[in-house]
Amino acid sequence: MERYVIIVAGGKGLRMGGDVPKQYLPVGGVPILMRTLQAFHEADEETNIILVLPEGQQEYWQRLCAEHQFSVPHRLAVGGETRFHSVRNGLALVPEGAEGVVGVHDGVRPFVSKEVVCRCFDEAWTHGAVVPVIPVVETVRQVLPEGDSLTVDRENYRLVQTPQVFRIDILREAYRQPYQPGFTDDASVVEELGHHIVLVAGNRENIKITTPTDIMYAEFLCRRTF
Amino acid sequence: MERYVIIVAGGKGLRMGGDVPKQYLPVGGVPILMRTLQAFHEADEETNIILVLPEGQQEYWQRLCAEHQFSVPHRLAVGGETRFHSVRNGLALVPEGAEGVVGVHDGVRPFVSKEVVCRCFDEAWTHGAVVPVIPVVETVRQVLPEGDSLTVDRENYRLVQTPQVFRIDILREAYRQPYQPGFTDDASVVEELGHHIVLVAGNRENIKITTPTDIMYAEFLCRRTF
Repeated sequence: MERYVIIVAGGKGLRMGGDVPKQYLPVGGVPILMRTLQAFHEADEETNIILVLPEGQQEYWQRLCAEHQFSVPHRLAVGGETRFHSVRNGLALVPEGAEGVVGVHDGVRPFVSKEVVCRCFDEAWTHGAVVPVIPVVETVRQVLPEGDSLTVDRENYRLVQTPQVFRIDILREAYRQPYQPGFTDDASVVEELGHHIVLVAGNRENIKITTPTDIMYAEFLCRRTF
Repeated sequence: MERYVIIVAGGKGLRMGGDVPKQYLPVGGVPILMRTLQAFHEADEETNIILVLPEGQQEYWQRLCAEHQFSVPHRLAVGGETRFHSVRNGLALVPEGAEGVVGVHDGVRPFVSKEVVCRCFDEAWTHGAVVPVIPVVETVRQVLPEGDSLTVDRENYRLVQTPQVFRIDILREAYRQPYQPGFTDDASVVEELGHHIVLVAGNRENIKITTPTDIMYAEFLCRRTF
């Protein structure tokens, strides 16, 4: 069984005058994106890593790798207009005829545990389509179209993380579909074809780093873990 | 307008041989529960604080206060069989005829911001019933009775925090109802009477400390904040 992971790192282009995209910010002295690649390499050195980056950021990334003497093997694909298109571009680097599983993972989730990575890849080979989830700790309210809202039973909901892992043939078939705005994650793309998605336990630290508070939390986790 | 807050601290009894309930664990050298009371005192010194504790923990709490020279004024109420009964016991200490608002807050949420406290209390006086919420960052899946699951639009969901704040007359009327297992938070009790709940912005750091990772994160937030 071959293993591939497509790591998707979006963010505004570096030349557009915005802030440096979050995936390049250092936590514990190492850019977030490098930590993410490292997590998959450490879980299984045989995993083929495909990193999808906007074209305008690839040179920057190469320089960053040289600067940090970053040695985790990976190939680069070019980012697309939406996440859907980026994943499709990454998937094009998985060789035709490859037999095994392919995961899709957010570049800004460096704290996925080794156990969760292994669980998702192993179960995907058996079940075809797997996503890691965690329970909802808070009370959940659903907002209704009229602006009202109501409490719903949080036991019926899960928060979805990545890596979302699939048998290669299934993900390839799914990404042959035309893009729809309702495709919020890879599971939803695969689901559109009628495939059943199996839920497995994620790890709570596997946060998607999006806010300044998240960055601080990431610093905290690094000091604890490394 | 008078302001009251009922701080609910449950957890197993100290004499039952379990671990020390989380609310007494120190973060940054100060027990979590003291930090929670302090947060409301600092937001508004005029707020009347009612702390609901299991009967078997009250002596322990008094000793802890003496040891830490904890000087935030508060009154004690006795915890009940469920959270619902604890809130009802706390509410009994709000004087008959008091005009104003009363909040209910989890004892293990010390990181509620001053802004969120003030916003909830002010809006409750205008609107009657207010809860602080934050958006859901992750993709959300709903688990169906048959064991299947489906992606739902996370834009339609909010994670609910505390303090949940109400006009005193509204909360009092709500807590005259008989207990129902579906009462997961105070908003759901008030909602049962047909009252509209207004959602205001919470703060992401306002976590409910429940896991060992949460405790460590709390340590980190304390070092940053204090």
